[in-house]
Amino acid sequence: MVVKVYGPDYGSPKRVLVCLIEKGVKFETAGIDLFKGEHRAPDYLKLQPFGSVPVVQDGDYTLFESRAIIRYYAEKYKHQGTDLLGKTIEERGLVEQWLEVEAQNYHPPIYDLVLKIVFGPLMGDTPDPKLIKESEDKLSKVLDVYEERLSKSKYLAGDFVSLADLSHLPFTQYLVGKVGKEYLIRDRKHVSSWWDDISSRPSWKKVVELWPGLY
Amino acid sequence: MVVKVYGPDYGSPKRVLVCLIEKGVKFETAGIDLFKGEHRAPDYLKLQPFGSVPVVQDGDYTLFESRAIIRYYAEKYKHQGTDLLGKTIEERGLVEQWLEVEAQNYHPPIYDLVLKIVFGPLMGDTPDPKLIKESEDKLSKVLDVYEERLSKSKYLAGDFVSLADLSHLPFTQYLVGKVGKEYLIRDRKHVSSWWDDISSRPSWKKVVELWPGLY
Repeated sequence: MVVKVYGPDYGSPKRVLVCLIEKGVKFETAGIDLFKGEHRAPDYLKLQPFGSVPVVQDGDYTLFESRAIIRYYAEKYKHQGTDLLGKTIEERGLVEQWLEVEAQNYHPPIYDLVLKIVFGPLMGDTPDPKLIKESEDKLSKVLDVYEERLSKSKYLAGDFVSLADLSHLPFTQYLVGKVGKEYLIRDRKHVSSWWDDISSRPSWKKVVELWPGLY
Repeated sequence: MVVKVYGPDYGSPKRVLVCLIEKGVKFETAGIDLFKGEHRAPDYLKLQPFGSVPVVQDGDYTLFESRAIIRYYAEKYKHQGTDLLGKTIEERGLVEQWLEVEAQNYHPPIYDLVLKIVFGPLMGDTPDPKLIKESEDKLSKVLDVYEERLSKSKYLAGDFVSLADLSHLPFTQYLVGKVGKEYLIRDRKHVSSWWDDISSRPSWKKVVELWPGLY
């Protein structure tokens, strides 16, 4: 059964795509056009009742929320492809910790920047410099903690790449691209090296090449 | 080694407390007074660099982010106390899905209500009715999805209680208490039964009795 991933053109579904490639899991994609409101169509809401992307269908099994999906496939194919969960329960604990940090601390300000600078203008909104500055300041403080952490270990959860690192790829790609704030990464030596490392993985280069979306 | 949990008087650390009790894991607590800025003290920031609660110390192992901590202990003590992860990888996938929904959809508006109505006034802020209405409307839409889901299964991830359900306890307790919006739960038949079920668990009653905080 081939896994079907909805919404490959957007950021959160790309978390799923890069992890499926790392795990060597075959998949196909189904486009969902948010600008045309396809995420609000009744058939789509049966799969994802909150109307967001991604959702995956895997035979009879349906799963949504990108970070839940990547945990599921990392566990299901634990011994296939790149191990993304760490080797011990303690390592997995740290993977979970930094995956939560990505979701709770890193994602909200970077998502605000992407919405205001990339998506907003496409819908006729004018970005508010004061709100952009607030989001940037929040993200800077988070990145200061990352800089300290990454001065001590190669990846966020330790000396192994994991879901926690890969989960940062889709929205950081916007940050260094259309958001126009690559300096937030480059001004921090260890964050900059980490970004070069994870964004040059063949899995991620393939995702960006095949589904460039608004990058 | 006894697990040490920091910040038991606040909402997020209570996710950890209730799960440790369910798993039969012994722990002790260490108070952190956010109003006195103890979460900004250098020694605390060494444990939790973002200055939030909770953090746990378990021998040499330190872990933060409440939802990462509860996953760690649910996995470490998989066969002790209440199984909170489901029996199969597919069940765990659904636990992860609804735990993410709690974190991404449910928590942000309910946290806003708690901040504005309970914590804000203690720091001299006057709640803004318009912003409160916005948060309430967002939460209502999320609860409509829950009502539909809980009409089909007893708990969020299926017919078994899990981390996904328990993770809702601390902030929903504020909602039905000092926030003064119990009707958001009671107006929905299945959400109301689910709330009665999970909030009457001895583990949760013990948490509220021992660490009432601002409930």
